[in-house]
Amino acid sequence: MSGNTFGTLFAVTNFGESHGPAIGCVIDGCPPGMALSEADIQPELDRRRPGTSKFVTQRNEPDQVEILSGVYQGQTTGTPICLLIRNTDQRSKDYGDILQTFRPGHADYTYWRKYGIRDPRGGGRSSARLTAPTVAAGAVARKWLQQKYGTTFKGCMTQVGELAIGFEGWEHVQGNPFFAPVADVSAIEDYMNVLRKSGDSCGARLRVTAQNVPVGLGEPLYDRLDADIAKAMMGLNAVKGVEIGDGFASVAHKGSMHGDAILPGGRFETNHDGGVLGGISNGQDLEVAVAVKPTSSLLVPRASINTVGEPVEVITKGRHDPCVGIRATPILEALLALVVMEHALRQRAQCGDVSIPE
Amino acid sequence: MSGNTFGTLFAVTNFGESHGPAIGCVIDGCPPGMALSEADIQPELDRRRPGTSKFVTQRNEPDQVEILSGVYQGQTTGTPICLLIRNTDQRSKDYGDILQTFRPGHADYTYWRKYGIRDPRGGGRSSARLTAPTVAAGAVARKWLQQKYGTTFKGCMTQVGELAIGFEGWEHVQGNPFFAPVADVSAIEDYMNVLRKSGDSCGARLRVTAQNVPVGLGEPLYDRLDADIAKAMMGLNAVKGVEIGDGFASVAHKGSMHGDAILPGGRFETNHDGGVLGGISNGQDLEVAVAVKPTSSLLVPRASINTVGEPVEVITKGRHDPCVGIRATPILEALLALVVMEHALRQRAQCGDVSIPE
Amino acid sequence: MSGNTFGTLFAVTNFGESHGPAIGCVIDGCPPGMALSEADIQPELDRRRPGTSKFVTQRNEPDQVEILSGVYQGQTTGTPICLLIRNTDQRSKDYGDILQTFRPGHADYTYWRKYGIRDPRGGGRSSARLTAPTVAAGAVARKWLQQKYGTTFKGCMTQVGELAIGFEGWEHVQGNPFFAPVADVSAIEDYMNVLRKSGDSCGARLRVTAQNVPVGLGEPLYDRLDADIAKAMMGLNAVKGVEIGDGFASVAHKGSMHGDAILPGGRFETNHDGGVLGGISNGQDLEVAVAVKPTSSLLVPRASINTVGEPVEVITKGRHDPCVGIRATPILEALLALVVMEHALRQRAQCGDVSIPE
Amino acid sequence: MSGNTFGTLFAVTNFGESHGPAIGCVIDGCPPGMALSEADIQPELDRRRPGTSKFVTQRNEPDQVEILSGVYQGQTTGTPICLLIRNTDQRSKDYGDILQTFRPGHADYTYWRKYGIRDPRGGGRSSARLTAPTVAAGAVARKWLQQKYGTTFKGCMTQVGELAIGFEGWEHVQGNPFFAPVADVSAIEDYMNVLRKSGDSCGARLRVTAQNVPVGLGEPLYDRLDADIAKAMMGLNAVKGVEIGDGFASVAHKGSMHGDAILPGGRFETNHDGGVLGGISNGQDLEVAVAVKPTSSLLVPRASINTVGEPVEVITKGRHDPCVGIRATPILEALLALVVMEHALRQRAQCGDVSIPE
Repeated sequence: MSGNTFGTLFAVTNFGESHGPAIGCVIDGCPPGMALSEADIQPELDRRRPGTSKFVTQRNEPDQVEILSGVYQGQTTGTPICLLIRNTDQRSKDYGDILQTFRPGHADYTYWRKYGIRDPRGGGRSSARLTAPTVAAGAVARKWLQQKYGTTFKGCMTQVGELAIGFEGWEHVQGNPFFAPVADVSAIEDYMNVLRKSGDSCGARLRVTAQNVPVGLGEPLYDRLDADIAKAMMGLNAVKGVEIGDGFASVAHKGSMHGDAILPGGRFETNHDGGVLGGISNGQDLEVAVAVKPTSSLLVPRASINTVGEPVEVITKGRHDPCVGIRATPILEALLALVVMEHALRQRAQCGDVSIPE
Repeated sequence: MSGNTFGTLFAVTNFGESHGPAIGCVIDGCPPGMALSEADIQPELDRRRPGTSKFVTQRNEPDQVEILSGVYQGQTTGTPICLLIRNTDQRSKDYGDILQTFRPGHADYTYWRKYGIRDPRGGGRSSARLTAPTVAAGAVARKWLQQKYGTTFKGCMTQVGELAIGFEGWEHVQGNPFFAPVADVSAIEDYMNVLRKSGDSCGARLRVTAQNVPVGLGEPLYDRLDADIAKAMMGLNAVKGVEIGDGFASVAHKGSMHGDAILPGGRFETNHDGGVLGGISNGQDLEVAVAVKPTSSLLVPRASINTVGEPVEVITKGRHDPCVGIRATPILEALLALVVMEHALRQRAQCGDVSIPE
Repeated sequence: MSGNTFGTLFAVTNFGESHGPAIGCVIDGCPPGMALSEADIQPELDRRRPGTSKFVTQRNEPDQVEILSGVYQGQTTGTPICLLIRNTDQRSKDYGDILQTFRPGHADYTYWRKYGIRDPRGGGRSSARLTAPTVAAGAVARKWLQQKYGTTFKGCMTQVGELAIGFEGWEHVQGNPFFAPVADVSAIEDYMNVLRKSGDSCGARLRVTAQNVPVGLGEPLYDRLDADIAKAMMGLNAVKGVEIGDGFASVAHKGSMHGDAILPGGRFETNHDGGVLGGISNGQDLEVAVAVKPTSSLLVPRASINTVGEPVEVITKGRHDPCVGIRATPILEALLALVVMEHALRQRAQCGDVSIPE
Repeated sequence: MSGNTFGTLFAVTNFGESHGPAIGCVIDGCPPGMALSEADIQPELDRRRPGTSKFVTQRNEPDQVEILSGVYQGQTTGTPICLLIRNTDQRSKDYGDILQTFRPGHADYTYWRKYGIRDPRGGGRSSARLTAPTVAAGAVARKWLQQKYGTTFKGCMTQVGELAIGFEGWEHVQGNPFFAPVADVSAIEDYMNVLRKSGDSCGARLRVTAQNVPVGLGEPLYDRLDADIAKAMMGLNAVKGVEIGDGFASVAHKGSMHGDAILPGGRFETNHDGGVLGGISNGQDLEVAVAVKPTSSLLVPRASINTVGEPVEVITKGRHDPCVGIRATPILEALLALVVMEHALRQRAQCGDVSIPE
């Protein structure tokens, strides 16, 4: 298997490198007859885009998306939709020093061992930049799911480094560069300012949810809804942990407390299971949490080796995010949307259509 | 997509229900020329088997595996290997009371909503019994990986309910029914005895690792090694969280501490990343942790509804595990082996062969 | 890819060898809620079954199918359906002489070169016996398609060796062992009697059609309906040619004559295109023809080599069909049904549902 | 399934419409470390390109290919290779008259019924123009197969309309616009001139072969080499028949004549089976023939209906090929290369590597 395709019925094939001519994706399987233009996609790309605050990489990319196919007179035709994003702010010289060395925590070493060759410019294919096509494809899925089932997706950052962020309300998320669900982000700004000056980086914890999810999505053995969510999330750069519902807190739970009582009308008293039972959506909100490790690009020197096996010391100059978690929220939402979209189409295939929440 | 197949190059298609005539799987893609008999598979099934201590379900199943195809004169031929396990201890009457009601925390409700029909006997397809074919297939993968690369898999329980279990050594794991890596399991026994008498259930935390993993396994975008591990683990019944390497602890880490320094010879100073960098194995041990929620089958009454939507109270009689995590260790090992096997074959396809750790 | 699975949404995974303990398949993706029992499948297996006349192999196999999973109280549940057929009339000694030699025209040599090992008993996996699970799976697809869309499948033999068979009517097909659409098959009997006595074998030409096919089936680039039909047909043992509609006769056609004029109501004046336009069904009958090569098992001596490369002379004793085309009709019908089923589910996934012919 | 991807290990995802901004493909799974530039691909596109003689469509497209990803410093990196071809000679007005009517023999009607919407400009997605990305991807596969195994691909036209073309030698094929293997093509020119003047179109028969094919390619049940060849060929626009080896002539063969005797060294006396036995390559040349139906675009009036179901008369003005078979040769070669490539990688996955012909 080639590996760069997400999904099989709503199949997103991702291509490109950080400093090549372009990145993009082909979406194959989009239902026909949906109104679609660049204006549906660009806002999501803008949310993910670098250079929007001093807390993220200063690379200046407009991330302008172009629809090359699959849309006729403003409507999807059911044929593949190619989305192209030209790279415009490549600075290959910034990365010249990592050509012969492997940055710890990065994919440099493993690409080298896997393929025997790697594109070192800006991390090449392993750059976080390659999440842009995912976000673009997610925007298409989100529009269809919203129109068809009223399904929506929301995410936020709930912890940055050692600093836990409370939850005051979804309405705050878009009002700050951290996607933090709080009114006052000065504590986060202070934390990040100290971090940036130290040349170090930190991790983050994020939450992503879906509302109005149809009941019955998920193939119950192996290709479960929760399994595919876990794959999508863990497949994002730097993610090291995924939880659904109560996640690791469930370990210390008793069954008498954990199991969500079912109420008439197919509602539930609680949502410890995060919207999934036996691998299948139960109509409650999908609740997912992810752990993002600290950025591996550091101004702090690190021990490593070079391509001929000699020990070297590595400092990563150039532009990078001190906390990759800061820009992760729109990506997690897109990934969750892609998983739900895939399973909605699978459910239509086998069972004719999905159950709408009552 | 049909959903009941794990992997594409080493493809395991699982079939069966808890109380049907048989369960099993078809393994398609096994390399030819490997010695294989039931004796290679049965020991792993015996490790997972119910009825082996008073702390697990008392269902008495020999779980005797039969190879129906794909092996000639004791060697794999490269053709599909069908593994069959007859069900022998079905007691359909035990489950008569759940025919019309949905047990909270179980898949009853979601199967009903998804398919409009469900086999309620012993949980039908959502029973933990269906992990037996996974374990059987895993045994085949483990044998091949062991012979080809020396790769091995180990797991243990590290927490049961509120009770953390220390790690004293892998050698203890096989000496107790909990797969606990400690010499003295009396504290666990006491905990479980109290739990059983209360009619309640509890969660568990488990660890699973792989040693001597080839370098370079994993397709770096979407079908990453870590992504597929997360999918495999989260796809197991009752799992609600997955971590790779330091997992959620990474959130509070600094980059200067987290990134694993690379040493000459392709060794690493630490293993915070759990053996995966950029979605690709780096030759270190794969380190995975999972959270298992408390068993949803309880003697404690729970509020629910029946198939016509009326409120009911549910007590789950019959046989079940008070902590499904107890028997999960061999299953997690099998799942990890299946993921590594799949990616080893993928690596051979694209790059000719895998890199053996130096 | 493992290769032994037909379809992805209605996925049939085939296993077994001619002289192993059993053959069978797992159907994954069958829609739930359809009444299904062995009685729906057995008649199709009986049509394909060996030993029913003196013109086919005398192997005596009841081909009794057992449903192992996926059905509860007589209804499909949406979970995998395992169909098992035990082998009962194995005579391994008959095949002892081909262990070390490669029969010309058979798969002996290529299996050996591909896998380095082969099961020589009765052709092992390359035996025509492995078409039985295909026929069984096809019976499930046929029932669903018939109930849902009224789609039906019919086939017949139109030529045997040099002997062209006229078409007098579908009603004759079931009345003779050749699936010939003629009232009087004495010419065919005479032809076959002469052939059998000579120890030689011959080819055949067959026709298979589908009626009441929904409009709109087929993904227009690569996974076209006609492409998948061609794959299914050419994938059957001994098939060397496939035609859709006018097939090779189209070469000499003029466009003014070939293109099927479209009439109000979505009907067509002619059916030169065999029911497919641009890879998509147009609602007309699917019309397919296949060429089957002569059986490679002969009493006539043939030059070959053995496993150490020395020249040998091979005569194939044992039981075999002098014309494998004779029993091919029910298999071709099943294959066509599996292709239509797969594409019907694909169409439901992307477009919500299929168009019924008006 | 989305349907627009060819292959799974060497996966080519095709996108674009005849008169959209661009067409192209993403190749996922290409082995790393192969030298690759546009200069490897452009010659094959030039062979297929329109406007090169008066016997083909006069659309003037340079078909300039651009590599957008997957290549670094002139070498493949193992990551997806996006190939882009901008459309430059769109004349949407030519097709305005077919917006509301369905051309007989074209995909207009079936796209409409399938998707409820279609892009009518130049046939949209069903245009033969979409074979360009296939040819481009095939060029990549051809280079790898040539370097790795010495495998080469050749094709020619063997019949045009009623006019059979003899075979005088491969060396003639590149010397005329018909890909005819004869020195003197004046008879073909005369035939085509008469045809063009009549406003009518005709079919063609083509042959495509591969030399130095590794032994052992093909998964023997369902995903056979011959099955995948048939799918690839029948999946090409206008193809209505496929033969492997002796094809339909095999029907009248006797087994004593047909079966290819095996000689020491793994050579064969004859090649009636066209290089495939039991679905697996035997090391002989692959021999394939296809039937192409007459172009459906005609100046001769045809009966049809419009989108509201009323009867209309259709004449297809605009630019088109009077015999689409004329430009089919490079496409068939590319398709055959893609099938061989896919199976070579599959063989490496399961069996470690392929067998080179001795």
